[in-house]
Amino acid sequence: MENSRPNDTPLVTSIIHAASSELSPISNGGNGRQIMKLVINGDSHTQAHLGQVITHYLASLQPHRQRFLGYPTNEEFNYEALAPLLHLHLNNAGDPFHGSSFTLNSTSFEVSVLDWFANLWDIEKNEYWGYVTTGGTEGNLHGLLLGREQFPDGILYASQDSHYSVFKIARMYRMQCIKVASLISGEIDCHDLKALLLANKHKPAIINLNIGTTMKGAVDDIDLVIKILDKAGFSRDRFYIHCDGALFGIMLPFLKSGGPKITFKKPIGSITISGHKFLGCPIPCGVVIARLNYINALSRDIGYIASRDATITGSRSGHAPIFLWYNLQKKGIMGIKNEVENCIRNARYLKDQLGDAGIGAMLNEFSNTVVFEKPLDDEFVSRWSLACNGNIAHVVVMQHVTIQMLDSFVAELVHNRSIWFQEDGIRKSLCIADEVGAVNCSCALHKANMDIQPNNYALQQIKQNV
Amino acid sequence: MENSRPNDTPLVTSIIHAASSELSPISNGGNGRQIMKLVINGDSHTQAHLGQVITHYLASLQPHRQRFLGYPTNEEFNYEALAPLLHLHLNNAGDPFHGSSFTLNSTSFEVSVLDWFANLWDIEKNEYWGYVTTGGTEGNLHGLLLGREQFPDGILYASQDSHYSVFKIARMYRMQCIKVASLISGEIDCHDLKALLLANKHKPAIINLNIGTTMKGAVDDIDLVIKILDKAGFSRDRFYIHCDGALFGIMLPFLKSGGPKITFKKPIGSITISGHKFLGCPIPCGVVIARLNYINALSRDIGYIASRDATITGSRSGHAPIFLWYNLQKKGIMGIKNEVENCIRNARYLKDQLGDAGIGAMLNEFSNTVVFEKPLDDEFVSRWSLACNGNIAHVVVMQHVTIQMLDSFVAELVHNRSIWFQEDGIRKSLCIADEVGAVNCSCALHKANMDIQPNNYALQQIKQNV
Repeated sequence: MENSRPNDTPLVTSIIHAASSELSPISNGGNGRQIMKLVINGDSHTQAHLGQVITHYLASLQPHRQRFLGYPTNEEFNYEALAPLLHLHLNNAGDPFHGSSFTLNSTSFEVSVLDWFANLWDIEKNEYWGYVTTGGTEGNLHGLLLGREQFPDGILYASQDSHYSVFKIARMYRMQCIKVASLISGEIDCHDLKALLLANKHKPAIINLNIGTTMKGAVDDIDLVIKILDKAGFSRDRFYIHCDGALFGIMLPFLKSGGPKITFKKPIGSITISGHKFLGCPIPCGVVIARLNYINALSRDIGYIASRDATITGSRSGHAPIFLWYNLQKKGIMGIKNEVENCIRNARYLKDQLGDAGIGAMLNEFSNTVVFEKPLDDEFVSRWSLACNGNIAHVVVMQHVTIQMLDSFVAELVHNRSIWFQEDGIRKSLCIADEVGAVNCSCALHKANMDIQPNNYALQQIKQNV
Repeated sequence: MENSRPNDTPLVTSIIHAASSELSPISNGGNGRQIMKLVINGDSHTQAHLGQVITHYLASLQPHRQRFLGYPTNEEFNYEALAPLLHLHLNNAGDPFHGSSFTLNSTSFEVSVLDWFANLWDIEKNEYWGYVTTGGTEGNLHGLLLGREQFPDGILYASQDSHYSVFKIARMYRMQCIKVASLISGEIDCHDLKALLLANKHKPAIINLNIGTTMKGAVDDIDLVIKILDKAGFSRDRFYIHCDGALFGIMLPFLKSGGPKITFKKPIGSITISGHKFLGCPIPCGVVIARLNYINALSRDIGYIASRDATITGSRSGHAPIFLWYNLQKKGIMGIKNEVENCIRNARYLKDQLGDAGIGAMLNEFSNTVVFEKPLDDEFVSRWSLACNGNIAHVVVMQHVTIQMLDSFVAELVHNRSIWFQEDGIRKSLCIADEVGAVNCSCALHKANMDIQPNNYALQQIKQNV
């Protein structure tokens, strides 16, 4: 592995130190990007000089912001009222419910946020524990550790569509991990899960469920998974379910059209969501809520902070809980519902526009993630910050994504396809039937299917009888 | 374990929802604290209303800020110029050197910061890898994982004075961990280390070295540890050294008076420091630098972000590297040197003041952490945000700690001791000779020793001949 320098970052390189006089943007090889020089040479710089660099940097991000379609982060928020908090280092080290001698903390905001999520997921205050994390990965690190400590020789089952952190964590924790097949929708394949459980009946099961998969936004069928566990002979004391709800875990409860219900009334151990995704937050953060009785195995009294520690990261941001608190208070339930519906509506709009343009696309019923063929040109992918995996790409329709952005995107994609597919007379629309189903594929072979189903928002659900 | 509500947080509780009219601070049981009500009830609130809550909260932190002595975080910084960055979610997911398709990133700032640290610790750009972490614990999570992946059956050796995260990590990673004794100074006891290494010669050694222990600020003797490894028959390909430099790792190179040298010219694998400690940053963050050749075992290509991932947390703050970059550029080398010297000078001042008042205290030669008897009254401990462990407490003299604060603290401590020790006629100065050495103890038995050594800044070093 070589230690190459960044090549995909906005308008900035770090090769040469900038004296004040060198701060004007410099054209970089004609691709419209401009260079700032960020090397730290040890001199002291004035606030004015540094402010100038930041201003350039922010300006350089604007074009990316205006075409930011590929990731499930909400870039539409206003935390101006919180700017004075930048004057303090706040730290919620330890247990948010226990207080600590690090008095510059925001654990009261944190507990309010946690209580809100506990209420959302139907667990009583005296039955849950949780904390504000540094993001979805830490939520998974925590939930899966609880599962492992509960069942030290348990096997981790996760569908192949699970977030990459899940497999990384299995390795970190030295857990046996079995990858379960997924349906075309992205949901966990319960036939496969059942076969794997039956083949490994002698060991407890730790199950990672996706409440919105990373690439296709599929929601695993929690009721079916619980039924399968029962059928395979796993009683409640022999399994642990962790729900990775990164983006969609907080959208799902607010869908007008219903959808599967994630709740602690079902036998799950933990749920995590990311705070910077649907809610929107400048820094990555998240929330993990778990059953209190699983926490004892992890929690340690730590004299140094006069608190207990059952977290992964120990020192924790005091700002993140305030961002989340502020956000929830400002939106209110109605605000959240409206934003969820807007995202879903606009995602359906995009799916339709692509369909009308003859471009195959898939949109799960309970999702704001539109999946389609990976564009042939990397520059196009980068220009719209698309996330790709194999033959497919996706747009996640978040709050900052307007109809106008989507129209521009589709128009540009249509225009570019006409160039890509004529250019060499050989390249043509990829067949992505394996990834999104024949009915959603617009390759030469499958195009006919598409035409007869113009309003197919959701992938035709393959009913899982297991 | 019960899920109690916070009791030690500043002026805030989370019991009842506040309507606008209820926002005025309310006296809370006469202890001078005031209550705000933070419960989220689902209504939408105006920015003005929420801004008022934040203003109250900030005001409630001020008294704590003015007496914040016990933790190694620098509360003296000004990031006003960075406030506009709050309008964007920035995310450095993946490998900072590789770029990613998450275009709203700050990896160029991150690489500049990493290059600066690599240069500080004498490792060439093409020989290191690193990233900006969420704090010291993630740095330890990363460094120790590199060690474990290098030596899957290696034993982790860490002195009993190591940060609590080190032992938590050993458990998370299912590593065999041996706790090594410490000297009174807090340094790792190399006699004990040698005996333990000899008793476990058949397994590689992964060693956690403390560059400033949490409680006593002791710097482990890296040269002696390397000598011990050699003497015990551990060749370079059978050990991995991770340096936990949380606070002092970045202060040490800038000491006027020299001190041990931490450098990649010595056979170490990784170093980590916290960004929110000496440098000062609103949110917890840190830096880890490791030898590039150890990274391959961890790094995975992740299609979704068009990057590689060798980090613990995956999604990572784009703001933290900019805070660090800004801070290093504003201070410059001379600024850092001055701040280090100031902290050291003021720590010696505190040690002297305590000594003059007949209060035993210890200050290691290369440290800004003053250790003394744990005050008898919890309210006093909380009032000054002191960190305690067993019979001892410490003050970490950071940039925001002024001579005036220290004078007030000593005066108040002297005054309170006169009350505590008279009150019942029984309580008296604790003997802390076991923790800080007889020479630094002011209990009835050891007081005489103290009087003959009025200028003993550093604990008399016990030369470790091993």
